[in-house]
Amino acid sequence: MTAKNMTPVTVIGLGSMGTALAEAFVKAGHPTTVWNRTAAKAGPLIDMGARHAEAVEDAVAASPLVITCLTTFEDTRLALRPAVASLHGRALVTLSSGSPAGARETAAWAIDHGARFLAGAVKNVPAAVGAPDTLLYYSGDKEVFEEFEATLKVLGGDTVHLGEEGDLAALYEMAVGATLLPALVGFFQGAAALQARGLEVHTMVRFAGKWLDMIKSLLPIYAKEIDSGDYTDGASSVNLFLSGAAHDEDLTRETNVDTDWLAPLHDLVRRAAEAGHGEHSISALTEVLRKPARQQ
Amino acid sequence: MTAKNMTPVTVIGLGSMGTALAEAFVKAGHPTTVWNRTAAKAGPLIDMGARHAEAVEDAVAASPLVITCLTTFEDTRLALRPAVASLHGRALVTLSSGSPAGARETAAWAIDHGARFLAGAVKNVPAAVGAPDTLLYYSGDKEVFEEFEATLKVLGGDTVHLGEEGDLAALYEMAVGATLLPALVGFFQGAAALQARGLEVHTMVRFAGKWLDMIKSLLPIYAKEIDSGDYTDGASSVNLFLSGAAHDEDLTRETNVDTDWLAPLHDLVRRAAEAGHGEHSISALTEVLRKPARQQ
Repeated sequence: MTAKNMTPVTVIGLGSMGTALAEAFVKAGHPTTVWNRTAAKAGPLIDMGARHAEAVEDAVAASPLVITCLTTFEDTRLALRPAVASLHGRALVTLSSGSPAGARETAAWAIDHGARFLAGAVKNVPAAVGAPDTLLYYSGDKEVFEEFEATLKVLGGDTVHLGEEGDLAALYEMAVGATLLPALVGFFQGAAALQARGLEVHTMVRFAGKWLDMIKSLLPIYAKEIDSGDYTDGASSVNLFLSGAAHDEDLTRETNVDTDWLAPLHDLVRRAAEAGHGEHSISALTEVLRKPARQQ
Repeated sequence: MTAKNMTPVTVIGLGSMGTALAEAFVKAGHPTTVWNRTAAKAGPLIDMGARHAEAVEDAVAASPLVITCLTTFEDTRLALRPAVASLHGRALVTLSSGSPAGARETAAWAIDHGARFLAGAVKNVPAAVGAPDTLLYYSGDKEVFEEFEATLKVLGGDTVHLGEEGDLAALYEMAVGATLLPALVGFFQGAAALQARGLEVHTMVRFAGKWLDMIKSLLPIYAKEIDSGDYTDGASSVNLFLSGAAHDEDLTRETNVDTDWLAPLHDLVRRAAEAGHGEHSISALTEVLRKPARQQ
């Protein structure tokens, strides 16, 4: 594949994710310019054929499509400050975590400087960048998305535009990502429990994976219940989870694993039961998690 | 399929899971006897061809393979008390949740009464009973497992014997199941966040499902790290999760969703960093969850 007719791309921020993004563009044949505060990080990419810009303004000026992969939206604006004069007319795409408020602020800032703006998120690990099934979602200027869609798909075949509001991707990022730490801590707790018995953790991986598949299969059912507000099909009822809470004390007794972190989860289940959801689906916890409007 | 040559089976306890188990046996052509404290629950099964025993001792006496599906091990022993004289020589298989200690106690009790014992768990929802991919695991008397394996596979094609110790299935059940409530609460929190913005929850189901796939893909990596005790490949480091903790405050601010339940999770991450795991893989949390030996 030659670089002819391929959209030139700039990638700013070469952490493990930014490096993976730049690599994908280089491999796909896009003229790729990279910039990182610590220039040494660009070394392997230069060896692959990327061009390293000494100054961030040169990096921005090099391509119509500028992708940033920095830790926060604040970091992004700070890193681009010397380059604001070059932003005019360019498509600025952020691929970073951050709050919806940060995304709104950055969208306004980018538009102020004449840039067209998309904020997105890579919903996977760096090693998955470029795979046909890897999900990335974006929100903001739909024309930008459509103009560069083919190029953005280099990063993952499952590339989605969520809507014109620039903060939607950050909101979904928070909403979708909310299972990560809790699920992992649950797995690590199970791992510690097996270790307490002298068992190896890899023996539970296949079972834990199937269990996540089972949880996944429940999500459309729960979403439907939450969207309709009808929790009366209590196949997995709040009371069932309430009785399950007692087992966690058994686990502590049996394996001496720290289960204190589960107390507020059990408290949520108890509050749902007290609010009259005992025989309702566990998805009624959503009602308890929404704070009363008067506190807003 | 005729009932000739099919192992007669008794199912005791006709909640939603017990009913699904009995249904699967009836559909597969096994002569199936059922018993439930509230006899009315047996009605639909009788219509399908199951036989309802009036007394639990008759139910136990009816089949060489007796499967119980009651809430706890204590409930199981209590329900079987009038039938202990009939237990001799039978294979008693519990499919219930409960602690490893409860499994050990019930194994000893069953053996005392001359029964052969297996304790198992259905790792799926009642609707999945009977499917080729549905996982059930058992522990205890391996001869019983091998003798009845074909019959037990009626309940799910992925049927596994974990070991001779009767409490292993209960231990794995706790270890593997530990992701359920935390992952669900994470999903419900995300759902509440979308609702606060007026968005429908079903719009995040596909993304949340892929996110669970991503989490699943990490489990073998983390298991290897935990088994080896080598956490130095910090692609997803403790410090990375520590910086992510700040975003949850953003989420509360943005959507007024209750994120208090996450505080002890962040505290675990902080303790891992303080213990010198900052640049280590997040799987090092396992070390923090294992309480010091002196507390044992």
